[in-house]
Amino acid sequence: MRIGILGTGTVGQTLGTRLVQLGHDVKLGSRTGTNEKAAKWVTGAGEHATHGTFADAAVFGEMVFNCTGGMVSLAALNDAGAENLKNKVVVDVSNPLDFSRGFPPTLTVCNTDSVAEQIQRAFPDAKVVKALNTMTAPLMVNPTAIPGDHDVFLCGNDADAKARVTELLRSFGWRVILDLGDITAARGMEMILPIWLRLMGTFKTPMFNFHIARG
Amino acid sequence: MRIGILGTGTVGQTLGTRLVQLGHDVKLGSRTGTNEKAAKWVTGAGEHATHGTFADAAVFGEMVFNCTGGMVSLAALNDAGAENLKNKVVVDVSNPLDFSRGFPPTLTVCNTDSVAEQIQRAFPDAKVVKALNTMTAPLMVNPTAIPGDHDVFLCGNDADAKARVTELLRSFGWRVILDLGDITAARGMEMILPIWLRLMGTFKTPMFNFHIARG
Repeated sequence: MRIGILGTGTVGQTLGTRLVQLGHDVKLGSRTGTNEKAAKWVTGAGEHATHGTFADAAVFGEMVFNCTGGMVSLAALNDAGAENLKNKVVVDVSNPLDFSRGFPPTLTVCNTDSVAEQIQRAFPDAKVVKALNTMTAPLMVNPTAIPGDHDVFLCGNDADAKARVTELLRSFGWRVILDLGDITAARGMEMILPIWLRLMGTFKTPMFNFHIARG
Repeated sequence: MRIGILGTGTVGQTLGTRLVQLGHDVKLGSRTGTNEKAAKWVTGAGEHATHGTFADAAVFGEMVFNCTGGMVSLAALNDAGAENLKNKVVVDVSNPLDFSRGFPPTLTVCNTDSVAEQIQRAFPDAKVVKALNTMTAPLMVNPTAIPGDHDVFLCGNDADAKARVTELLRSFGWRVILDLGDITAARGMEMILPIWLRLMGTFKTPMFNFHIARG
């Protein structure tokens, strides 16, 4: 599959590398299209890796990952272009973390709305699926890095889009994939970040994940 | 130990019953002090169970549980009386859920504040410990109802108060008790409710709990 990734940070690069390893063609998109981190990533990731602007990545991808920060996601997706996202699955991995007042960050949107819902409203012809935002990047693509059962959540309005993301998650090694329903479930998925950040502070490592224990 | 419980709903009654079974003396407090649910609970729970007003329960308890709804917790604790809570451990089990606009509820406070912090600010001489708010009542007092490891979170500003609550949680059967630090961690513990509610809707049962899987 051809996959466009918006954002050249750790999340975008980690997902990109794994997707290339799994045989996909990946284009990493940045605001300028001449991002040094993206160029360096391309050099290391092999011939199935390319980079360009947000719009280049969106045009390229049959599926598009939003790996930009939640505060700038709408701007990045606007740069990517509504026409280039039309009818495409947009996997929103972002979190609306505002670090401008230091640590811990606050959420720029929560409780009655979420970044994923904002994206779905702004791009009604895209099929937004929220996923993978509740864990550190290395775990997203390699769940076996932590032993035992632990879970990835997803939600979205389009069942077929969720099925396609589920298939991709299975190829990463995910076994417990919990579909929480429509895109409004993204509120809960994003509001789990404050306790995630506390847990990271408690454990002094981001290598942990949520598991839902059931009777 | 003598324990006062504010609130006569399922959470208060379930905690009260278990605490009596463990040999504690429990007084269930309500706004009026003549609450029918409380009177019925006393009849069923045996000679170590009594009931009265919020203030009666606070005076009685060496430790006090806040099992009122988060929207009315400050009012209930004001009725209980600052003098009656002074130097006491106040275990805050509440969640700031507002059902006035239907389901799902929204949080009346979140992101930059929490009910537990509001309580600690309003009652600076009480030792507030947030705990048990992230699960259904039957699990609070009987974690073995779900197999395998799953976790209870707690936080608060007073180390000794947290040690005492930890001891009580162990007597309930809890093995994984995660201390998330000072009372501001209650933000994360309360903001986990939206995903908890979604999971309940997905599973069609509240009998599940969070576990943090670690490397």
